[in-house]
Parts: sequence; C-alpha cells; structure tokens
Amino acid sequence: MIIVMDGKTPEEKIKHVIKRVEDEGLKAHLSRGTEKIIIGVIGDERKIKIDQIKAIEGVEQVMPILKPYKLASREFKKEDTIIEIDDVTIGGKEIAVMAGPCAVEDEERILETAKAVKKAGAKILRGGAYKPRTGPYAFHGLGEEGLRYLARAREQTGLLIVTEVMDTRTVGLVAKYADILQIGTRNMQNYPLLREVGKIDKPVLLKRGMWATLDEFLLAAEYILSEGNRKVILCERGIRTFSNFTRNTLDLNIIPAIKKVSHLPIIVDPSHGTGRKDLVPAMSKASIAAGADGLILEVHKNPELAVSDADQTISTEEFAKLMKELKPVAEAVGRTL
Amino acid sequence: MIIVMDGKTPEEKIKHVIKRVEDEGLKAHLSRGTEKIIIGVIGDERKIKIDQIKAIEGVEQVMPILKPYKLASREFKKEDTIIEIDDVTIGGKEIAVMAGPCAVEDEERILETAKAVKKAGAKILRGGAYKPRTGPYAFHGLGEEGLRYLARAREQTGLLIVTEVMDTRTVGLVAKYADILQIGTRNMQNYPLLREVGKIDKPVLLKRGMWATLDEFLLAAEYILSEGNRKVILCERGIRTFSNFTRNTLDLNIIPAIKKVSHLPIIVDPSHGTGRKDLVPAMSKASIAAGADGLILEVHKNPELAVSDADQTISTEEFAKLMKELKPVAEAVGRTL
Amino acid sequence: MIIVMDGKTPEEKIKHVIKRVEDEGLKAHLSRGTEKIIIGVIGDERKIKIDQIKAIEGVEQVMPILKPYKLASREFKKEDTIIEIDDVTIGGKEIAVMAGPCAVEDEERILETAKAVKKAGAKILRGGAYKPRTGPYAFHGLGEEGLRYLARAREQTGLLIVTEVMDTRTVGLVAKYADILQIGTRNMQNYPLLREVGKIDKPVLLKRGMWATLDEFLLAAEYILSEGNRKVILCERGIRTFSNFTRNTLDLNIIPAIKKVSHLPIIVDPSHGTGRKDLVPAMSKASIAAGADGLILEVHKNPELAVSDADQTISTEEFAKLMKELKPVAEAVGRTL
Amino acid sequence: MIIVMDGKTPEEKIKHVIKRVEDEGLKAHLSRGTEKIIIGVIGDERKIKIDQIKAIEGVEQVMPILKPYKLASREFKKEDTIIEIDDVTIGGKEIAVMAGPCAVEDEERILETAKAVKKAGAKILRGGAYKPRTGPYAFHGLGEEGLRYLARAREQTGLLIVTEVMDTRTVGLVAKYADILQIGTRNMQNYPLLREVGKIDKPVLLKRGMWATLDEFLLAAEYILSEGNRKVILCERGIRTFSNFTRNTLDLNIIPAIKKVSHLPIIVDPSHGTGRKDLVPAMSKASIAAGADGLILEVHKNPELAVSDADQTISTEEFAKLMKELKPVAEAVGRTL
Repeated sequence: MIIVMDGKTPEEKIKHVIKRVEDEGLKAHLSRGTEKIIIGVIGDERKIKIDQIKAIEGVEQVMPILKPYKLASREFKKEDTIIEIDDVTIGGKEIAVMAGPCAVEDEERILETAKAVKKAGAKILRGGAYKPRTGPYAFHGLGEEGLRYLARAREQTGLLIVTEVMDTRTVGLVAKYADILQIGTRNMQNYPLLREVGKIDKPVLLKRGMWATLDEFLLAAEYILSEGNRKVILCERGIRTFSNFTRNTLDLNIIPAIKKVSHLPIIVDPSHGTGRKDLVPAMSKASIAAGADGLILEVHKNPELAVSDADQTISTEEFAKLMKELKPVAEAVGRTL
Repeated sequence: MIIVMDGKTPEEKIKHVIKRVEDEGLKAHLSRGTEKIIIGVIGDERKIKIDQIKAIEGVEQVMPILKPYKLASREFKKEDTIIEIDDVTIGGKEIAVMAGPCAVEDEERILETAKAVKKAGAKILRGGAYKPRTGPYAFHGLGEEGLRYLARAREQTGLLIVTEVMDTRTVGLVAKYADILQIGTRNMQNYPLLREVGKIDKPVLLKRGMWATLDEFLLAAEYILSEGNRKVILCERGIRTFSNFTRNTLDLNIIPAIKKVSHLPIIVDPSHGTGRKDLVPAMSKASIAAGADGLILEVHKNPELAVSDADQTISTEEFAKLMKELKPVAEAVGRTL
Repeated sequence: MIIVMDGKTPEEKIKHVIKRVEDEGLKAHLSRGTEKIIIGVIGDERKIKIDQIKAIEGVEQVMPILKPYKLASREFKKEDTIIEIDDVTIGGKEIAVMAGPCAVEDEERILETAKAVKKAGAKILRGGAYKPRTGPYAFHGLGEEGLRYLARAREQTGLLIVTEVMDTRTVGLVAKYADILQIGTRNMQNYPLLREVGKIDKPVLLKRGMWATLDEFLLAAEYILSEGNRKVILCERGIRTFSNFTRNTLDLNIIPAIKKVSHLPIIVDPSHGTGRKDLVPAMSKASIAAGADGLILEVHKNPELAVSDADQTISTEEFAKLMKELKPVAEAVGRTL
Repeated sequence: MIIVMDGKTPEEKIKHVIKRVEDEGLKAHLSRGTEKIIIGVIGDERKIKIDQIKAIEGVEQVMPILKPYKLASREFKKEDTIIEIDDVTIGGKEIAVMAGPCAVEDEERILETAKAVKKAGAKILRGGAYKPRTGPYAFHGLGEEGLRYLARAREQTGLLIVTEVMDTRTVGLVAKYADILQIGTRNMQNYPLLREVGKIDKPVLLKRGMWATLDEFLLAAEYILSEGNRKVILCERGIRTFSNFTRNTLDLNIIPAIKKVSHLPIIVDPSHGTGRKDLVPAMSKASIAAGADGLILEVHKNPELAVSDADQTISTEEFAKLMKELKPVAEAVGRTL
C-alpha cells in the first residue's frame, strides 16, 4: 500500500499515519519530497482500513498495491482450474457450449430444443425456471415445474443442466435439479446469495454485473470460493455503456485480462451481451479467438414464439450452422469443439 | 407501440404482424412508405411481447410509447406521495434529513452520533447492521445486535431509524426494529427481496442501482408497489460512468425528471454519490435546489475511526455547519428544513 | 511518482529502473516487500515518461502523484481567477448569465432575443455563427454574417458576445467580433485550435468534452494557458453515460471538485447538459447551489421555430421567470445575480 | 418518422403538427389512442427538423426511422467498398495489417521498425509526425521532418504510409507524403477537418471517437464522403466506459454491426483500444474472428524506449510471432493474411 500525503502536513500527522500502519504489524517507509510525502507500506496491507487512513488530515491518496482477492488469483493457484462434470470439462482444451431457451416454457418445447442443440454439439442445456425480469408484470418462469422439465430433458438427452437461482431460500431446491447453478448479472453483488451457493457442492456460473469492474467481478467470485466452493465459472455478458447499437457492450477484453490474473475459467454470453441475434455468430467466434473457455447461447426452436428475449435468440438451425463455423476458429487457437 | 418494418417486406409478413397485434385485442394502423412501413398499435401495448414481434422477419424496430410502469406513474396518481411516520414527513414541504454512520459499530458510538445529528436537526438516524461489502473479508455489520443498538438510540433520541436489509430471510427481523427499510444499490434488481419488502407495512428507501436507467429504477419501485406497499422513497446515489474524480457520478438530473413522471418522493445520498466528504456540502445544497425531498448523509463522531466509508463521512461538527447552510437554500426553493 | 514492481523481479531490472529515475535528476527510495517492491520517486516527476517505465520488465504499476497540469492548478495560483470584461465579472461574487439562441438565424430574431434576455438580467449574449452539427446536411450557421448580427446586437443592447470557433483558420475572424470565444465540447482536445485561441487576448469559454475526465479537462485548459492566454472559463455541459432520460448526464460534481484543484471559474450549460427544456430550471438552480460561477442557457423568442436544439431551448418568458427564481438561490449561497 | 403526442392534446395542436409535416411535402398518418396519438410520417423525413417538432406543445416523442446517413449506408451501396492502393487492398478478402511506432522518433529507428514489420508481413507502416497529446508539455511529433522519414521508409521498404493529420492547415502537407491520412479519435467530430480531408484524393482512416455512437461514427464518415472522397476506412479503437482494467473498452461488437448497415471497411486498433500490450495478441485474433478487415498495431524495435505509448506497444519480435498466430484465425473465417 502506498500513502501519499501533502508535503506541508504537520510532523505529528505523519507520525500518526506511520503509527497506524505499525500498529497493524506492517512496516512504513517514508520518502519526503517538497510537494508530497510518500509512505510505502510493506506487509499484508489488507489489514489496514483504507478509508480510515484516507480520513486522516494531510492524506491525499491511499493506493493498494496487492490484489483485493486471494483465492481467485493466479498467485494463489498457478494452474488453470478445470471443472469436470461427468465427461464435460470447462476450462480445459475443449470449448464448452451451453445452449437453450431463455426461459423454460413447457415440457415439449424444452425437449425439442434440447434434442436439437445436443445434435448440433452442445453439451449443456440452459433454460430459466426462475427469471429475473425488469418489470413485475412479465413472465417470471415456471419455478420448480420448470426445473422438473429440465431434469426430464437431461434424462432424455444426456445434456447437463445450467439454470439460474435468484433467492437464498431456493438454492437448495435449484441445486437438487441443476448441474450448474447460475448467478445472474443483477445478483453479482447479492452477497447472501453468493455465500449460499458457496456452501453447496455444485459448479456455479457467475455472470459479471453489468456495472462491475474486473476486481469487483473476482471479489464476487471470492465470496463463493471463500465459503468452500472452488468450482466457479466466470461469464462475461456485456456491460452498461453509452453505446446504443447493442443492448449491452460485450467486453471481450476481460477474457485475456482474467486469464492473466485468475485461474478460473471464463465463458461468454453473446446473446445477452449484444441483445441482437444478428451479432451472435460474429461475437461467438471472436469470444473463442480471444481465449474464452466456452459460450452460453440463447437458442429456441422458434425464436418468434420465445416468451422472453426472442430478439436475441437464434434458431436451432442457426445454432447448428454456427457450431460448424466455430470449429475451425477453435482449432486456430489450439482448442477443440 | 410502433412497429417499423422494412419497405420491401412480403405482404404476408406484414399481415402476420397485424394479426399478432389484433389477436391481443389491439388495433393496428398501417402507414406505407417506400423505404419503411409503420404500424401504429393502439390499445394496451403491455399485452404484446416486444421481443417476439422483433423476432418476426421484416420487423426492424419496435418502440413502446407507454411507460412500462403503472403504479409508480403520475398518470396513476397525480398528487405527490407524502409519507408520514410519526411527526416526520417525506415528500412534503419539509426536507427530510437522515444522518448517521455507515455501519453501526457499538452502542456507545451510535448513541453519541445519534445525539449529535439530532441536535443539528436530523429527524432520522441511518446506520447499517447488515453491510454489503465488495469483498468477503471486510466487516459485514453486527446483525441483530446492531439493530438493537439502533432501537436503543431511537428510544433515547426520538429519531426514526433507517437501515438496510439484504436477504429475503431477514426482512421480518429488520422490519421489527426499523422505521424505514433500505434496499441498497446492489439489490435494486434483487426481485425476490423487492417483493418481500413489498409485503410489509413500513416505508422502503429504494436506492437507484448504479447501472439503472430511470425506467428500470421506477420498475424496481413498481415491484414493491405491486405487492401492496405504497410507501416507497426513491434515492439517487450515483451511477457508474468513466468519470474518476468521484467514486460514482451523482446524477441530480434524475430529481426533476422523476418529479415529472412519478408521484414518489426522491432523496439524495451525496456521501455514496461522490465518495468524497469534501464534495458533500456543495452537492447537498445542489440536491435541495434541484428539488430533492431529502438527504441521507454519512456522519460520524470521528470519521477517521469509522469502520467503513471513512473517506466519505463528515464529522458531526461538519454536519451541524452544513445543516445551517442548507436552511436558506431550502427556503430559496420554497421548502423548509 | 510511485513505481510498483513484482517482488520477484531480478535485481538488475530494479537497478535499471532506479538508474532511469536518477538519470533524470530525481531520487528513488526503495521499499522491499515479499510480494511487491515499491520505488518512491522524489522530484519533478513530469520529467519521466511513465509509458517507458511501464514497459520495463517487472514493472507492474506506475502512479503519478503530482497533478499533470500546472498553470491551471490552485498550487500555481491560490486566489480565484476573476475575469473582467467591461463591467461584467466572471468568477467573482456575481453569477454570470449568458443566454441566447443555439444558432444566429437572422438579424431581427437575434436582436429580439437579445433585448429580451437583457431585460431579464443576462449580461452576455450567446449565439452560434459556426455550428458543429452531427451530420453534414444540417444548418451549419451563417458564418461571418452571423458574427455581424451578433455585433449589431451588442451595439444595440450593450450585451457582451460569446460565440463558438471551430477552425484554426477562423480564430482571427471570430476574435474580431466576439468578446468571449467558445471552444465546443467536440473540440476540447483539438490541440491546434486550443493553441490558437491561447495566442489571442480574449477570454475563452472551454466546454468539457463529453468524454473528458477532470484531469483531461484541466489539461485542455493548460494548452490555452501555456500559450499565454490566462483568461479561461471552464464549462460543464454533460458527459456521455448509459443514462438515457437526458441527452447527456450533467455532472455537477465537477463544480466543487474544480474549485478545489483549480483557480479557474466554471460555469454550467444545463441546456446541452440535459437536452430537455423541462429540466433546465431545476438544474440551473442546482448549478448555482453547487457553486457554479455562471450559466449559459439556450433561450429563443419562439423555441418551436429555432433552427437547432429547439427541444432544449426555453422561451424568453421562461427565462425571465427563471432569473427571478435564481436570485434567492444565489443569495442563499452568498452570491449575487 | 413517428411523432407521439399526448392523448389529451387539443385538436388544433395536432393539426398544427400535421400541417408542419405536410408543408415539407410529406404525408402524415394519424392513429388515435386514448393515452397517446401516433402520427406516422411517410416520405423523406430528413427534411423535418426533429427539434422543432419536439418543441411543439403536446409532442412527447419524435422518432426518426430512417438512418441519418446516406452515402455511408448499405442502402446506398450494396457491395463492400474495397480500397486499393498499389497492390494492397483494404476491405477485400485480405486482412490489411498496419504496424509501426506511435510516433516517428528519428530516421534510423523508423527505418529499423519498418524493415522488421515488413519482414513479418505488414503492408502498411504507421507512425505519427503530428501527435495529439493530452498535455501541452509532452512530445508532439517531428512535424514535416517526421513525414520525410516516413517517406524515406516507404522508399526503402515498399510499405505504404498511414499517418495522422490534426489541423485543417496541414492537410495538404500531410497528403503530399502519406498514402492514407488518419483522423484521430479526438478529431472524429472536428468537422472542418473532416471536410478538408473529404476534398483530397487519398484514403482516410477515420478513428471512432471514444464517445461516439455507431450513428455518429457513420455521420462523421458521411462528412468525408459528402465532399467527394469515397475512400473511407473506419477504425474501432476503444470507447470510454467505467471499466478500468483497460485504458479504453475495445468494442468489437461494432464490427458485425457496421458490416450490416454500411459498405465501408472497418479495421481495429487493439493497442489504443486496450492500452495494454499483453492484451494485444488476444484482441487482434478476436478482431479478425469478428470480421474486421484489418488491424493497426503499435510496434517498436524497443518498446521501453518508445517516446509515447510504450506500455501498449509490442516489440517487433512479438509482432512477428503474432502475425503467425493470426494466419490460421484469418483462414478459419475465410480470409487471408
């Protein structure tokens, strides 16, 4: 940690800062300039409350130099985390593709879509039983009934199931049916929920909050990891910017950036990330070229009839075509699909 | 609702769109241009799934023209909502000031601060017993113990209590102690939580999500209102932008904009909104001049020792001085303080 | 400046960094931790090229601690800069109000508006003769003819004239007619233009780029100041964010923030800042309460017929009413109007 | 264009709007609902001043439905624009790679880098003779001397030259030396400059303003096209967002989005787009996979000594390695390199 103080700060205030640092068992190195005083803090800076130091008279800036997350960092674990579920791996050489409708609508339709995405090469079926919707009057999902349909689709196709959980009170229920629990973008900083999924023994797909910095994203993962669940899959799904030709701005830059500082796998959701089905194929290819470990795509037998997100959903035919186009891109960057 | 289609769309697709509209009991008015076809939809457009229409071949844009929220709108309720708790009103002529520390730390300190802010003119005491923190290793509040200290401060000072609730499972507990329940910025789209506080009979202070548009903000309020709780207080607390001299960009524009479309009261949190105690006085005055119904401020007897948000917390002395400065500003815009 | 290196960096690389620092005549203080090495640089850090240091192996972060601007800073000049033109002051106790149409349309209309805003209390007339328009097919202003009409309006009303200059080749021409030269938001980083207006002896109204940080804003001012022109008036006019109920997000936070680090006066443009005439009155009051030194407002005799920005332009009647409402707000914060 | 009016608007105001529309030779179709009145405008809506209509009492929204640009649109020109300079094509099957230092520093160094990038497969040399720098005290380029060094490098290597022009007064000079003129991000809305490069007969590389929407980007291109220069190459280079792990947020979504609405070629600048050399390889691959027509990369013989942008500049060795990795990605999406 580095503490910058005004060069004209009274001596006692400088000593006060140094004492606060030393009281926590850390060392303080003082460098005096005419305009500014720099105090280099050596040791586990996480013990010091930045806000409190900033509140001391004369202190102008306090800059942490260590990463705020531990378990999520490459320093903590050098090798890539590879999550294995049955014969599917996420984070290894293989690109993991999750596909399916935004919401589970009825048993027949989810089965139909499941079979089609399976045939095209997907290994994991996505579908919402509990849907976060911007307004209270929209369709909010079938609840446990939807979970049962998903389980039925798994039985019949062998696909794994990923589905969202929104409430601390239903974590147990969702975990009973799902292979992977999804935390949606709006809940990335719903800390009680993160802690709850941190206590179960199933992989968690954590979507980046549409407002979240890289550090905040990994700190949300850290909440889950710190409860004992080490199977976290990160997911970029678009951030809020001024740009308005897409619903969100899919930020692929985070893929190589995460790979540098964290061992966790990261996949991309180009459907929500762009909100436009016509951009999904190009951005899917770009995601893989950028180093993503997988994709999660909204696919529906008949997008026009999808009860939600119809405009960003590709058809099962378009999905099959896309899967063929993705293969050479994956191979071009040393991956398989 | 307006549907724009490509001018070269085959006739059958145009008819298909019109049929979809009429099937919902609405009327469709067709205007044909050479480049584009415009279909004006007359009736309760909320019945139509925009995404589905967008997914039809030939459809280029679907633009809703009615507001997506109802109960929160001025159309639904013309007069300003004034929330009365004991002798305090929020949304009326009087500016409501809520003040106190970020987190409740211990009984003595919260009492000390409570007495000081009471003396300076605050009517409501803020203080967190459950704290959402970006990282899992920070101080997360005293829980029910903190709530008890707040209740004790109420007994001794007569101040009302506003405190945050983060988990559907603790809504009942927090409601037992608090006069106003706060939903924090990170939970603005935590829909199960919104529904839960919508079922209780106490006012809810709903903070704007740092990523939320005006419509999303009012739709979050709509979740609470639609469950039966009509006592919602909106709160602007800064949004995420590229600008980096403040922690967030406090967006005062939303005050007059909300007043135009909604009857709900709106207050401002300049402490979180700027993240800088040196900007709090100016932005407090600006908030009131812009038409805010109140302020929520972080105040601590000794900011340097505050366990969280110390750098954006003003001292009780600074608060007393500010209250004096706010009075003439309130009067200049026809309010009292 | 602070340089943070990886704790495992080979000794020779550390020495290399220290040598680079010392070669520029600065001192380097080394603090060794296990995870990180901190090098505190004491002296005029502006001599060091940050990018080059960052490019050295082992260097993880380089953090400047001095402000990147000099002449614009409070350190350079303690007292507020007060710009005097005839009997008008900008930056002093008096609030300076500039008002007029977006574009000069014809002689009669500009005169009419000039007389009305003068009567209501404005001291400065705004009006564009050269208009930056997003598309090439819009009205781009009357050019020199427009400047002549403005001069005519000055003669007849005694109002000062502020008008925009967009091209290095017309700075001389505009300076011949205008009392204050305006640099528009799109040109905030048009460096040849900044240098050119830095060479003339008339005040410059510098609008914040809609993408500009506080530091970039003051560095743009520094370009003008460093050429010798010390009469720079800053102007907040809204930034680009995700928020869509306003055309831009008027960022009033910058007013007290600028006052802290710079001696330059700062005014606000709520017309462009919000893009909504219905928000102009509230945001004008808020600007003054936040400490702004003035306002620049779009006012037109008949907004419906304004050739540009009609939707954010208030009528002369609305302006007269607003001026009356602003007076008590100005007085509440110790200013006059 | 669609005009939405309040359902309770007096009849005369509705007629007034219709008259305004018809006065411009367009047709108005009226649809009356209880809450809102919709007026569909058929014809060349660009004749109508949106702002003026918005300023009429009762008008709530005015929504254009035609694209604001013409010459830049796919409607105007169906086939992709392919720009040919000598034996290099931009916008065709081949991926165009432009590489070189941020700034031209001296003759020897630019030659050295030119030879290295040529050998690795680049066809175009980038290098700044006029440099836009955030502060006035930084290195601003060698001016014409730098242009001469670039010309020398072209003679010796056969590489084409792309270099920036910042001032209307030097367009002729830069055009004398350069094969492609670059308009930098800060000047994307410097309209006099756009018009000036629109009058010359050399291709223009137009960088997206870091604040620009897709429409504004294409409208800037329209300025150049409308002056007669049809050789415009678009370039994505990162936008301003809250995200802080990159200097800018490289927005690859714009590549497929531009391809849909415009015939112009688009390339990507991952060096400025991310500001981090460690992200350049992954984002270069992603750009090509997303459909970009080329790349512009900062490459230096010894990045640590580059006078500007050293931290985002890759070495000539890294560039050679990257070119090899890009080849299979280009082929995977049907392109050559």
